[in-house]
Amino acid sequence: MARDAGGQTVKRADARRNIEAILDAAASRLSRDPEATIAQIAQEAGVGRITLYGHFASRAELVDAVVARTIAEGDAALDEVDLTGDAREALVRLIGSSWLLIVQIGALMTVAAATLPPERMLELHAGPVSRVESLIDRGRAEGAFRTDVPSSWLAGTLHRLMHGASVEIDAGRLAPHDAAATIAATALAAFTAPGETVPSVDQASQW
Amino acid sequence: MARDAGGQTVKRADARRNIEAILDAAASRLSRDPEATIAQIAQEAGVGRITLYGHFASRAELVDAVVARTIAEGDAALDEVDLTGDAREALVRLIGSSWLLIVQIGALMTVAAATLPPERMLELHAGPVSRVESLIDRGRAEGAFRTDVPSSWLAGTLHRLMHGASVEIDAGRLAPHDAAATIAATALAAFTAPGETVPSVDQASQW
Repeated sequence: MARDAGGQTVKRADARRNIEAILDAAASRLSRDPEATIAQIAQEAGVGRITLYGHFASRAELVDAVVARTIAEGDAALDEVDLTGDAREALVRLIGSSWLLIVQIGALMTVAAATLPPERMLELHAGPVSRVESLIDRGRAEGAFRTDVPSSWLAGTLHRLMHGASVEIDAGRLAPHDAAATIAATALAAFTAPGETVPSVDQASQW
Repeated sequence: MARDAGGQTVKRADARRNIEAILDAAASRLSRDPEATIAQIAQEAGVGRITLYGHFASRAELVDAVVARTIAEGDAALDEVDLTGDAREALVRLIGSSWLLIVQIGALMTVAAATLPPERMLELHAGPVSRVESLIDRGRAEGAFRTDVPSSWLAGTLHRLMHGASVEIDAGRLAPHDAAATIAATALAAFTAPGETVPSVDQASQW
C-alpha cells in the first residue's frame, strides 16, 4: 500500500513536471511560430505526443491553458502596480506596466485570438479588465475622469488604444519606445471631461 | 457587320445588367447572411451560377467588387459633408455622416474583413482614410488638434473609436442612438493637446 501510494505520488509529480514543460514549450514556441503544431511543441517540451494529448486533448485546449497561465502571471505582475493616489497618475502607471506585458506576450495573444472563441478571450481577460474598470470608476467618482460617456466605453477605449499601438508599431507608423507615452497621452485626453484641461503625461506623473 | 456590332452591344448591355444585378444581390444577401454562397447569390440575382462565375471567378472576387462599389458610394456621400470652417466642428460632422454609413454597411464590412486580406481592406479604405487625414492635418496646422502624437495615430484612433462603437453596441453596452455623440465626444477630447480645454460636442457644433 505504502509503495503504491509512493508510486502514485511520483506519477503525479512526473505529470506536473510534464505539464509545466509542455506549457513552457508551448508559450515559447507559439510566440516565435504562431502556426506551431502539437508535434513540434511536444518535441520542444521533450515529451511524446501521446503524453501531451494525455494532458491536453486538442491544440485549442493547450493554447487555452498557456494563455490562461500567461494572463494569470501578468495579472500578478500588475498587482504590484500602485493604483492609489491621483487616478490620472495611477492610469499612467497602469498603462506603462500593461504595455510592457503586452509587448512580452503580444505574439501569444495573437495566436490565442485566432484559436479561441471571442467569449473565452473575454473570460480570460476578466482579471486585467476588472482592474482597469475599478480605477476608472474611482477616477470618475473623484472627478478625475469624465462621466458623460459610459464607464465601459472608457475601459474599451483604453483597450483599443493599447491594441491600436501594436497595429501602428507593426505598420511602422509608431516607434516602439514612444508607444506607452502615446497611449497614455491619448487616454488621459480621451478620459477628460468637456470643459476640463487635458493633463500631460509628465503632469500626471508628478501628481 | 452592322448586325454583329449591334449584337455585341446588346451582349455588353446584358453583361452590364447582369453584373449590376449580381452586385445588388450580393450586397443585400451578404448583409443579411454573411455565410451566403455563390449559388444563393446567383439565385437572388436571377442569373445562373455559370453566368456569375463568368463575371467573378471566386466568392472573394465578388466580395471585393461589392465592397469596392459600396465604399465608392459611401465616399461619394461623404464628399457632400462640409469639411470647411472650424476643424473640430468639421470633425463632428464627419463622424456623424461616417457613423451613419458604418451602420448601413457594417454587416458587409464584417464579411469583407473575414474574406479579403488586410492589405486589400486598407487599399479599399484609402479614399475615406485620406479624407480623415486631410482634416486632421488641417486641424493640426490651425492649432485645433494636438501635434504631440503622430497624425496617423489620431486617424487610427478615430477609426478604432468608430469600430469600437460597433463592438459596444453588439455587446449591449452602448445604445445605438448614443453612438455618434459618444464617438465625437471621445475623439474631440483625444485630439485635444495637453494644457488645452476639451470641447463639448455641442460647443463644436456651434463654432
